[in-house]
Amino acid sequence: MPHEPTAPAAPETRDVRVRCHELAPQLGQLSSNLTMIEEAIRAAVIDEVDLLVLPELSTSGYYLRSMDEAWSCALPITHPILDRWARLLSPTMTVVVGICESRDDALFNTAVTLGSKGVLGVYRKTHLWDEELTIFTAGHDRPTVIDTPVGRLGVLICYDLEFPEMPRSLAVGGAAMIAVPTNWPLVPKPSGEHAPEVIQAMAAARSSRVAIACCDRRGAELHHEWTQGTSIIGSDGWPTGTLSGDRVDALLAIDPYRTTISPRNNVIHDRRPELY
Amino acid sequence: MPHEPTAPAAPETRDVRVRCHELAPQLGQLSSNLTMIEEAIRAAVIDEVDLLVLPELSTSGYYLRSMDEAWSCALPITHPILDRWARLLSPTMTVVVGICESRDDALFNTAVTLGSKGVLGVYRKTHLWDEELTIFTAGHDRPTVIDTPVGRLGVLICYDLEFPEMPRSLAVGGAAMIAVPTNWPLVPKPSGEHAPEVIQAMAAARSSRVAIACCDRRGAELHHEWTQGTSIIGSDGWPTGTLSGDRVDALLAIDPYRTTISPRNNVIHDRRPELY
Repeated sequence: MPHEPTAPAAPETRDVRVRCHELAPQLGQLSSNLTMIEEAIRAAVIDEVDLLVLPELSTSGYYLRSMDEAWSCALPITHPILDRWARLLSPTMTVVVGICESRDDALFNTAVTLGSKGVLGVYRKTHLWDEELTIFTAGHDRPTVIDTPVGRLGVLICYDLEFPEMPRSLAVGGAAMIAVPTNWPLVPKPSGEHAPEVIQAMAAARSSRVAIACCDRRGAELHHEWTQGTSIIGSDGWPTGTLSGDRVDALLAIDPYRTTISPRNNVIHDRRPELY
Repeated sequence: MPHEPTAPAAPETRDVRVRCHELAPQLGQLSSNLTMIEEAIRAAVIDEVDLLVLPELSTSGYYLRSMDEAWSCALPITHPILDRWARLLSPTMTVVVGICESRDDALFNTAVTLGSKGVLGVYRKTHLWDEELTIFTAGHDRPTVIDTPVGRLGVLICYDLEFPEMPRSLAVGGAAMIAVPTNWPLVPKPSGEHAPEVIQAMAAARSSRVAIACCDRRGAELHHEWTQGTSIIGSDGWPTGTLSGDRVDALLAIDPYRTTISPRNNVIHDRRPELY
């Protein structure tokens, strides 16, 4: 008897357990920073997190005082520690971690995306902030959407997110989520308001119906303070999840129909690129 | 004796008195709506406002029930009422008002910019929301920056602002301020948060260091409610000004150096258009 033809299954909403784990790397202390990152990964594995986002420059700290200090804690993308971390992961898990990357004779402020089989993607920060320009080379490649166990993922780093073109281009490219390792320095804001970078993330999420997970720093570093604006934002633009100590956990529902926002409107299809 | 050469004066911060005046037009009642608009303009002249922003579709109301109703309260851009309003203005004053515009055999959701000498600019909404698509033709022209007595001004209408490309392209084009006539229907939001459209306006302002004045509706219309999110947002991204009854007044300081945000960063020059 022949098989009955089956209609293709309609796409369903997926639940993704996201964690942003704030770390306090010690400036220039590569070995202890790698240990701290590994502990955060192991904790996320135990807690069955699907997507773990760690801060920008977790391997090195942020306010690097010289090229020598930066080189002393730089890693090439081929460094065995990345494979070691990958092997810790379950097959359904994805990790995004910011590193100080050495590549040929240059340093990059890089975010590596890891799955259980190894490196899934490498993004080099394209918009460098202030003194970063004295240490790092800006990435030359546009951010791409990576197929990961948690779905189609885009990656940006800190100041990148203040360019509305960046999250937008990832969402137009099909990203359902964007992971953003950050080091947000504390800046003034009116009482009762979110940090300005969080507002920019909320607006980017809402405009393109893309979830955004921003993992900020913690810990003192040369007397600089951080916003500690770590936020997991749903594709409706609202922060969600629970803060517990140094981590925010959230269950994100990724609705395949999320970009349709009225009977006649879709935030992506309604764009008129010929006008911009 | 020859004149000494003089160095060109450095640009200075300009103070601009901005008012957003929420109106409650009656659906399809052209004559009384025109009177209401004129009263708002006269009040702004008396109060020495520099830039007055009025809501989207102030001449007609929003939830037009048929093409006949829309045509019954449509105006061509050559209608003498626009000249009449212009003649009320002081030479330093600019008004942006949303109208239901007839042009050839089509209707447009339009914002007219008026100075004391007449029409300074016409913008036809390019992103139409839901049932607007059954009444209006979408504008085909990109929004342009208009030289006005209050400086370089961009104009968007309501849903346009949810496309981050729109305020961005105006700021890149040199706009110091963006006026946004809106009719924001009430949507759910978590307690303590701004309306989502206000968050999008705040982010757009911050990202491009451009001031944004959004004038929303008030008054019942076929049982629809409005967000009443009228907001005047400084180029730092924070709402400012004072709400008094149906109007928000603010003194905006337009700093010519506002796009420089660190010793090495400028929000406009740091863009990397080759990557977007």
